[in-house]
Amino acid sequence: MSFSRPLPLRSGASLADYSLVYETYGELNPARSNAVLVCHALNASHHVAGLDPDQSLGWWDNLVGPGKPLDTRRFFVIGVNNLGSCFGSTGPTHTNPASGQPWGADFPVVTVEDWVDAQARLLDALGINRLAAVLGGSLGGMQALAWTLRHPQRVAECVAVATAPNLSTQNIAFNEVARRAIITDPDFHGGHFYRHGVIPRRGLQVARMIGHITYLSDDSMEAKFGRELRSPELGYSTLDVEFQIESYLRYQGEKFSDYFDANTYLLITRALDYFDPARDHGGDLAAAFAPARDNRFTLVSFTTDWRFAPARSREIVKALVDNRIAVSYAEIAAPHGHDAFLLDDPRYHGVLRATFERIAA
Amino acid sequence: MSFSRPLPLRSGASLADYSLVYETYGELNPARSNAVLVCHALNASHHVAGLDPDQSLGWWDNLVGPGKPLDTRRFFVIGVNNLGSCFGSTGPTHTNPASGQPWGADFPVVTVEDWVDAQARLLDALGINRLAAVLGGSLGGMQALAWTLRHPQRVAECVAVATAPNLSTQNIAFNEVARRAIITDPDFHGGHFYRHGVIPRRGLQVARMIGHITYLSDDSMEAKFGRELRSPELGYSTLDVEFQIESYLRYQGEKFSDYFDANTYLLITRALDYFDPARDHGGDLAAAFAPARDNRFTLVSFTTDWRFAPARSREIVKALVDNRIAVSYAEIAAPHGHDAFLLDDPRYHGVLRATFERIAA
Repeated sequence: MSFSRPLPLRSGASLADYSLVYETYGELNPARSNAVLVCHALNASHHVAGLDPDQSLGWWDNLVGPGKPLDTRRFFVIGVNNLGSCFGSTGPTHTNPASGQPWGADFPVVTVEDWVDAQARLLDALGINRLAAVLGGSLGGMQALAWTLRHPQRVAECVAVATAPNLSTQNIAFNEVARRAIITDPDFHGGHFYRHGVIPRRGLQVARMIGHITYLSDDSMEAKFGRELRSPELGYSTLDVEFQIESYLRYQGEKFSDYFDANTYLLITRALDYFDPARDHGGDLAAAFAPARDNRFTLVSFTTDWRFAPARSREIVKALVDNRIAVSYAEIAAPHGHDAFLLDDPRYHGVLRATFERIAA
Repeated sequence: MSFSRPLPLRSGASLADYSLVYETYGELNPARSNAVLVCHALNASHHVAGLDPDQSLGWWDNLVGPGKPLDTRRFFVIGVNNLGSCFGSTGPTHTNPASGQPWGADFPVVTVEDWVDAQARLLDALGINRLAAVLGGSLGGMQALAWTLRHPQRVAECVAVATAPNLSTQNIAFNEVARRAIITDPDFHGGHFYRHGVIPRRGLQVARMIGHITYLSDDSMEAKFGRELRSPELGYSTLDVEFQIESYLRYQGEKFSDYFDANTYLLITRALDYFDPARDHGGDLAAAFAPARDNRFTLVSFTTDWRFAPARSREIVKALVDNRIAVSYAEIAAPHGHDAFLLDDPRYHGVLRATFERIAA
């Protein structure tokens, strides 16, 4: 869907003539009251569920569909690709009208709040005044939270999984290393690599490898790969793969560099870095959540998630409780680290199923 | 000190005509029974204590010296730089006699066990048959452990700090990402960058930034940098520094790339990956420690060390106890993560002081 009215961004810049790609699942009821917006995280898209024309399964298909915890027989589910992404909505690979060249590194810096505002305009265009719920995990969870702060009247319930009220220093540090790998790749060309016919593949690979380590728990990596060798005997090489985990990470990095845009990676990690609703309130997270007094929250975290640890979700719970805002919180004992939010752990999905059944009722 | 007799390496290769640089502190007693060998970790050297001619302070000066926990008025302390390093002992920057060119990536892969064997030859040359103790932290701790497995008669006590019986999958994963950053830097030239007059500076910087994050605890990064900005206001940039932690990491990376050799980084991270004494015993760590039955051990770990967590030290303690080998173990509540082993936490230094006083007595 195309939008011509300029979108003011938090940075002070604005973006005119942008488009957002989206998918919907299920039917909007006559009262237009059963819409659920699903917000995506770093490398996902509007394609939340089902098979697309390329036979690719939606990234949250285990959760969203007929009879699934977010049941599309009852809810009208909307997946939208965020601005700055490389999966269809306006982003760095698109043409900058001012130059006639791809935006590249000149694409304006977008924040979680900007995404939420753009999503609200999409809802306007779809004729949806108020969401039954907004749902997201990780960076998507930050968007779900931001909905209740910027547009509290336009959403009833917020379901935020494996998220945090801001990035920790360590989180920012990992993002920064990933960005340095990309930016210092000679094929990055200051973010204007498109015109050179190259992509900063090496930097993207290293960035993805770093990210991947932080998505998995130490234990789940141990269980899946341990110290298993690729060959029966040690090869005693500094350059070649010795351990299965090395082979796995290289594969993940290569796959990622085939489809992901380097400028998008920079934009999205920066959106993560910048998200910090307490900042405008002198660091007081409870004050930040005051506008959400009429919303209802469901938060879920995973015990082995060391990227967005349960303690980070508990900070949000405390801020909500301080405001006497209704919140349910589940801390799921799951071995898979941050990635658990994408998996179909039965206790986790049980919580979300019960939540959406309550919302539907 | 130069050695002409070839050193057989675990890989099957051997190294002839190598030299080891070392420093000593204190006096060897007439019985030659008061020698303590200090083994270094990733980016340290033979310069353990005091000021060198460049006025640079030894890397463990807070621990080693007159009146310090390892008291050089009582002990003859030896610091030795390991093979493959870039601080003086034979390594990739030296000339490969076979080619007349720098070794570069052709330098043979060296292991913890190879280092220990080379150290034993240095002791031969110094006329020291038996060490009062071998001491090391992190990778140095692995060498201290390996001494008791390869040369148990030549050492009385093993003091191993912040170490592990092998790397976890996650540890290997971080090493692999760091290596990929170096190897895929176009200035690496397959490890023969010296002849091109360049160094893979970008790769080394990223490698060091990754390493640095794993040396610090989440909490200590939070306490030191938090989400503090470099400028009073957000700059909304993907390319420039916004947060102090970014500035700090970039500085650490740049400093490191000025003095550290890329091939050495690969060799040393591989030595870490390969260390696994249980491997030759079907994964049975207790069986691996059987040769150390007459040694005495002191192990120290730090609660916030997530690189070599206390649980890893406890695995070693269990293997020793299973062998009825004497072991003291201290788990120090310290906020500084893995780096704590280099700091002068009073409880930690108290443990080492008491240990060396007992050994001296």
